[in-house]
Amino acid sequence: MPQPRFLILADGDFGPMTSKTANSVIRFQPDRVVAVLDRSQAGRQVQDVLGFGGAIPVVGSMAEGLALSPTAVLIGIAPQGGRLPEEWRSWLADALDAGCDIWSGLHTFLSDDPLLVERARANDCQLLDLRRPPADLPIASGAAKETDAFRVLAVGTDCNVGKMTAQLELVGSLNARGVRTRFVATGQTGIMIEGWGIAVDAVVADFIAGAAERITLEGARDADIVLVEGQGSINHPGYSGVTLGLLHGSCPDAMILCHQATRQYLGDYRHASWLRMPPLPEYVRLYETIASALHPSRVIGIALNTYDMDEAAARAACEAATRDTGLPATDPVRFDGSPLVDAILRAREARVALRHREGPAGRTGDAVRR
Amino acid sequence: MPQPRFLILADGDFGPMTSKTANSVIRFQPDRVVAVLDRSQAGRQVQDVLGFGGAIPVVGSMAEGLALSPTAVLIGIAPQGGRLPEEWRSWLADALDAGCDIWSGLHTFLSDDPLLVERARANDCQLLDLRRPPADLPIASGAAKETDAFRVLAVGTDCNVGKMTAQLELVGSLNARGVRTRFVATGQTGIMIEGWGIAVDAVVADFIAGAAERITLEGARDADIVLVEGQGSINHPGYSGVTLGLLHGSCPDAMILCHQATRQYLGDYRHASWLRMPPLPEYVRLYETIASALHPSRVIGIALNTYDMDEAAARAACEAATRDTGLPATDPVRFDGSPLVDAILRAREARVALRHREGPAGRTGDAVRR
Repeated sequence: MPQPRFLILADGDFGPMTSKTANSVIRFQPDRVVAVLDRSQAGRQVQDVLGFGGAIPVVGSMAEGLALSPTAVLIGIAPQGGRLPEEWRSWLADALDAGCDIWSGLHTFLSDDPLLVERARANDCQLLDLRRPPADLPIASGAAKETDAFRVLAVGTDCNVGKMTAQLELVGSLNARGVRTRFVATGQTGIMIEGWGIAVDAVVADFIAGAAERITLEGARDADIVLVEGQGSINHPGYSGVTLGLLHGSCPDAMILCHQATRQYLGDYRHASWLRMPPLPEYVRLYETIASALHPSRVIGIALNTYDMDEAAARAACEAATRDTGLPATDPVRFDGSPLVDAILRAREARVALRHREGPAGRTGDAVRR
Repeated sequence: MPQPRFLILADGDFGPMTSKTANSVIRFQPDRVVAVLDRSQAGRQVQDVLGFGGAIPVVGSMAEGLALSPTAVLIGIAPQGGRLPEEWRSWLADALDAGCDIWSGLHTFLSDDPLLVERARANDCQLLDLRRPPADLPIASGAAKETDAFRVLAVGTDCNVGKMTAQLELVGSLNARGVRTRFVATGQTGIMIEGWGIAVDAVVADFIAGAAERITLEGARDADIVLVEGQGSINHPGYSGVTLGLLHGSCPDAMILCHQATRQYLGDYRHASWLRMPPLPEYVRLYETIASALHPSRVIGIALNTYDMDEAAARAACEAATRDTGLPATDPVRFDGSPLVDAILRAREARVALRHREGPAGRTGDAVRR
């Protein structure tokens, strides 16, 4: 399949912290993006909106975008609840008529929409619902803890703090050091970038951990280290169940705690003062407690997202995180990711050493027999 | 609608610990059950298999069951993964031809099966998929913590330890004491008994907490106390995500920890020695830690399931649970449930007293601002 040329639909919501899918595709695959559609920012360049992405134009209509000859429209924002705004249906129909495929990570599947299905068929185009789960998922059995690959899960203080971005940076650094490392995508954006994975928040609830287990085992087959994409947060009122199912399905040996340094309230709920975030050490305690109910796991480093801070403040935030938690902390996108890469390699060495000392029986760990 | 007369399908798996749905319907609505179909136990009476249920016969074929004039076939076992065994399709088609409705809590929806849909239509019968979730579920916002009703969630050491049964007993006792108490059903069996609810393990993962929040708010409208049906266990490899989504969506003020006293290993995984259960105080710590990340909550009592113990051993188990946890413990099915009823009423009084002292602002609690 030739590389797609994306027109990214992010109408009304294109920005550094709002259009996560759009931004990640632009960050990791800028050559695939011909334009972003957002009427509220039309005429600007992506660089001016995001601080990266160069001269990719922001256009103000579907017609203007289609004039740039994309081969696919990629839905680049995830409205709360994941459903397709009614207004976009006619735009997508126009795009199909212009010969574009549609890539979507929405909860509402485009391929369940009779209008879009008919237009896709008439124009011989594809509707790619990246969130549609496989039909044959298993109930998790804890099998992920048996992989030889060292498993690292990103965990977060909230949704949309930069878990996936931090990990994709770390995957690149680890591979650059010659350690065979694979990224295991658990959300639609990761799947768009990586080409495979399962959106664990879109499966039927009983199969969250089963989906995570399956892709963790798959990712571990040819790798020394797998970095599993995290989802949500363990104290998120809406999504904590997904977070825990993913945590127990992937059985991480180690966790990287991701946080946006300036954020004080859980993001989707900023009106509610009682959803103030606890301090980082409390998150460390929560994640280690609940992970270790199935498989012993430690938080080994902090990945801070400092996009909205000046450099001095960002460095100070990293130092404060280390002071508060006793763990290495950096912004792996902005600064050197080595402290986290080193922490992962050290933790892996410690596990290998433990196995050699304990023999094969030590491999399964024993979190719940006390 | 007249009361249904059920033929319960539990083929190959009818027993005290295997056929949860069948057993619960028999326990709480024995007058509705005309027979159980299980070829491996044909000719016995339900009392002999379960220890309760009286003279309800176990039959060995669908024809034999239909001869007893049921008005509905109720699928009484939940195979792992929840899918319909292929062999049963023709039996269900026969039942539809005999004029029966079908009640099902399987993950595989009968109303997606063309054969069964055609037979149901031809015979003017209903296919009731009790696990099919509503289409318009919200993302949870934490709103359940605002109810005036005191919220109690059953939490468990495993699946199938007796959470629903214990709670239905407690609901009866609380109402008998004149406290308006409602049961909030979160699984197919509870829905069969109670007539409403949502099977939270069957919703798309992002909506687990939203579903729990919706039915908790619904149950709280005309009640002083709501007892929310628990699901799974916080350390269950397959289902912990459902457990946590339900916990955070329902925001319990208090929890009852349910345990089958003789069980030592998580039930679906008894081959794996590393899934030994931790002691009860560790479960108390896990549940209180993770619940209180959103809303302060304490385990206030232990409900033991002692069905397979003699009376002396059962009483000793209750005493041991109290000694280990410092909490009231009883088997509310077998013995007097008063220790748990009293614990719920005391905890509710304490919350009311707290509200009076703190004023309205104290109502929202403050678990995460530390």
